[in-house]
Amino acid sequence: MKRESHLESAPGTSPGTVRPGGRTAKVRTAVLRATEEALATEGFHALNMDRIAGDAGVGKTTVYRRWGSPTGLVADLLRDMAERSVPASDTGSLEEDLRANAGLVTGTLTDPRMGPVFRAVIAAAACDEECATALRGFYETRLGTWAAAVSRAVDRGEAPPGTDPVEVVRAVSAPLYYRFAVSHEPLTAADGERAAAAALAATRAGVFAPRRPAPGTPGA
Amino acid sequence: MKRESHLESAPGTSPGTVRPGGRTAKVRTAVLRATEEALATEGFHALNMDRIAGDAGVGKTTVYRRWGSPTGLVADLLRDMAERSVPASDTGSLEEDLRANAGLVTGTLTDPRMGPVFRAVIAAAACDEECATALRGFYETRLGTWAAAVSRAVDRGEAPPGTDPVEVVRAVSAPLYYRFAVSHEPLTAADGERAAAAALAATRAGVFAPRRPAPGTPGA
Repeated sequence: MKRESHLESAPGTSPGTVRPGGRTAKVRTAVLRATEEALATEGFHALNMDRIAGDAGVGKTTVYRRWGSPTGLVADLLRDMAERSVPASDTGSLEEDLRANAGLVTGTLTDPRMGPVFRAVIAAAACDEECATALRGFYETRLGTWAAAVSRAVDRGEAPPGTDPVEVVRAVSAPLYYRFAVSHEPLTAADGERAAAAALAATRAGVFAPRRPAPGTPGA
Repeated sequence: MKRESHLESAPGTSPGTVRPGGRTAKVRTAVLRATEEALATEGFHALNMDRIAGDAGVGKTTVYRRWGSPTGLVADLLRDMAERSVPASDTGSLEEDLRANAGLVTGTLTDPRMGPVFRAVIAAAACDEECATALRGFYETRLGTWAAAVSRAVDRGEAPPGTDPVEVVRAVSAPLYYRFAVSHEPLTAADGERAAAAALAATRAGVFAPRRPAPGTPGA
């Protein structure tokens, strides 16, 4: 599993940037890379605007004016991570796509660099509303991307009609994040396999399809 | 759903206390209630030893000597919460027991008092190893308590032999904590029902029973 395998390798060009390769984009890339490095090595509560400016080789006034606060840095890093999201797998099998998703999440959370970054942003979101909103946006993007794989499976008849694709992807991620961020238990590839298998079994049983009585069902 | 419905109402008598109603236990109760109040209203990073001592009506030196640091307070609060855990439900039906567990977790996390307390301890655990260890211990107790309900269901033949009871209970909690602490999405009773149904479907499909070929299975 590659280090930042859920992200495109080309970093930091924001949709609002006038010249994608221009100075504004380069400043953003440098500042966000310094932010990620600080989160990975020291966590959210050591995040310091002056030091990020120094590490990025950017003027302090620029960093304060553009990002405002450490939470502003975290929020923009999460937007950048969402923008760099790579497409979901498309193996032609729901089981294989869910296993790929579980492997990606497990690999990211156990990665020596990205694990601490995720731990830091989850902590930041627990303390700060702006970070929480940014984290919600990040997962909305990630869940939406992988929901496409489930939608294709519904179209192929591999999952019941009416299955909520996002709910299936949440079901794969949830047990992995639970171990990582809530119960602080070890997280292994076997946990990923189990999460994918559990989500698949629940999907096949119709748990993620809204319960609507079939037309003409007596008394329903 | 009652406010602290997963805890006994009598607070703070620790197994190691010589006289359960004595001064040591009373000091602990007062300090832990003040800690919980501070976490509920201001979060982990505002936790201040001097203020906790003042709020609890206990000498500062006692608080510093006995708890050492804010993380020491959080760790002891988590031990206290684990000690006050109430038994799992025992309805005679796995489905009803899992629904009761999901309702309890959902009720606790959406409770106006306990929700912020859990958010605060999850943030503390993300930043501090002592808090992480204490939180792991808390969930070990809670998961173990509810695993008993699943074990009874296995004995009744409601779940496949060899089902890992703790894994079933984790599967119920995980999607609820994922919304609460990771994706920061709304958490409702419907999410609890879906989490219980998904865990039940995966249990029935044998996902939480170790895959061992049946004796005599050819080629297995």
